[in-house]
Amino acid sequence: MSEQIEGRNAVMEAFRAGRPVDKLYVLDGCQDGPVRSITRIARKNDTIINYVSKDRLDQLSETGTHQGVIAQVAAYEYASVDDILKKAEEKGEPPFIVLLDNIEDPHNLGAIIRTANLAGAHGVVIPKRRAVGLTATVARTSAGALNYTPVAKVTNLGKTIDELKEKGMWFVCADMDGTNMYQLDLKGPMGLVIGNEGEGISPLVKKKCDFVASIPMKGDIDSLNASVAAGILAFEIAHQRG
Amino acid sequence: MSEQIEGRNAVMEAFRAGRPVDKLYVLDGCQDGPVRSITRIARKNDTIINYVSKDRLDQLSETGTHQGVIAQVAAYEYASVDDILKKAEEKGEPPFIVLLDNIEDPHNLGAIIRTANLAGAHGVVIPKRRAVGLTATVARTSAGALNYTPVAKVTNLGKTIDELKEKGMWFVCADMDGTNMYQLDLKGPMGLVIGNEGEGISPLVKKKCDFVASIPMKGDIDSLNASVAAGILAFEIAHQRG
Repeated sequence: MSEQIEGRNAVMEAFRAGRPVDKLYVLDGCQDGPVRSITRIARKNDTIINYVSKDRLDQLSETGTHQGVIAQVAAYEYASVDDILKKAEEKGEPPFIVLLDNIEDPHNLGAIIRTANLAGAHGVVIPKRRAVGLTATVARTSAGALNYTPVAKVTNLGKTIDELKEKGMWFVCADMDGTNMYQLDLKGPMGLVIGNEGEGISPLVKKKCDFVASIPMKGDIDSLNASVAAGILAFEIAHQRG
Repeated sequence: MSEQIEGRNAVMEAFRAGRPVDKLYVLDGCQDGPVRSITRIARKNDTIINYVSKDRLDQLSETGTHQGVIAQVAAYEYASVDDILKKAEEKGEPPFIVLLDNIEDPHNLGAIIRTANLAGAHGVVIPKRRAVGLTATVARTSAGALNYTPVAKVTNLGKTIDELKEKGMWFVCADMDGTNMYQLDLKGPMGLVIGNEGEGISPLVKKKCDFVASIPMKGDIDSLNASVAAGILAFEIAHQRG
């Protein structure tokens, strides 16, 4: 099974991360800097380069935004929760994991994986059902983070939280009725739980969390975009971890 | 000229904000809670409701994600920069404005307007050229914030910054080579400048800024999604303003 990666940043990052690119499709006649960098690294990796027309690229494209380059690579493999914990251990850091309670929009999932990587989280946990998986759009939106940040898929998010609590982790979820996040101590081994775009965090998962954090908000509408809220909380945690 | 609003949250918010909805299209036979709330408020406002088939809605839809409801309303009017300053004055607050240096993705623009509203910013400024405007996708992604947060469109962002500096405002932009944002004093009358998704902030605009702020990052990839970065910085400013 192969996965398709589209767009300049995402394809370049796949090469940089040493992922096995089976085939590279490039817009024929395209000579600008980013595309030339990609064909250079492709030749260095003995990747087969196919120069094709815009029509052919449009036809191949799953996202509609290929920017002149499409790569076909081995599909992303899901990691296990243990892989994520091992990563924290290797770095000598208390675990920091982002758990997603049914994120449905692939752009949000990709942006949250990107954020998790840059906030220093060791991995992302998603549920098997009723949530988006690692599609080409997610890979592209993650801007390469999917090559570095392990993503584990679990059957039951609540059960995973219970198991990680037994290993000494603490959990914080985001909800409007929570404690001002600046007043919470979010250091130590921490799981950050982000709820669904429309419905927020599910009551069962919320009940398992040690803290409920709210981002102090002004304004006239209800809630932030899920990936923006995840970013604000993840970086507050990163800030407190120092 | 009329504008189309699609999706349950966006349509509900348009009604709540008192916007003049010319026509409402609803999926025939759809009886769930959110849709019934929308038809209730539509009847209260004497809006004409058309119950139509899914095919008809798909055909009308500009975004492909109508969720069973499409409203046609008067187009969003752009505000002026003075309108934004007036809003700050009415609230008795030092102005807080988010300026976008060529954001191209309508999802990012919508998410940033949503963030600006919730962080207590008084308005958003976008440039006339080479940037996305207030489309149906932006309205939907803003989750109703476009009904409350004025958006001004200016010919020359640098010139607007100069004029606002003369009125006592300070400007901070986001860039990787900047000062750790937690070490900057971001109180007072403040403009937050967010750069383009791929190229970041343009050199001319950057030179006009009083501070360059960076979000301290770990991880393996280059940069955050533009709307996530805007969220983290906007809420750090909101936090410092108290």
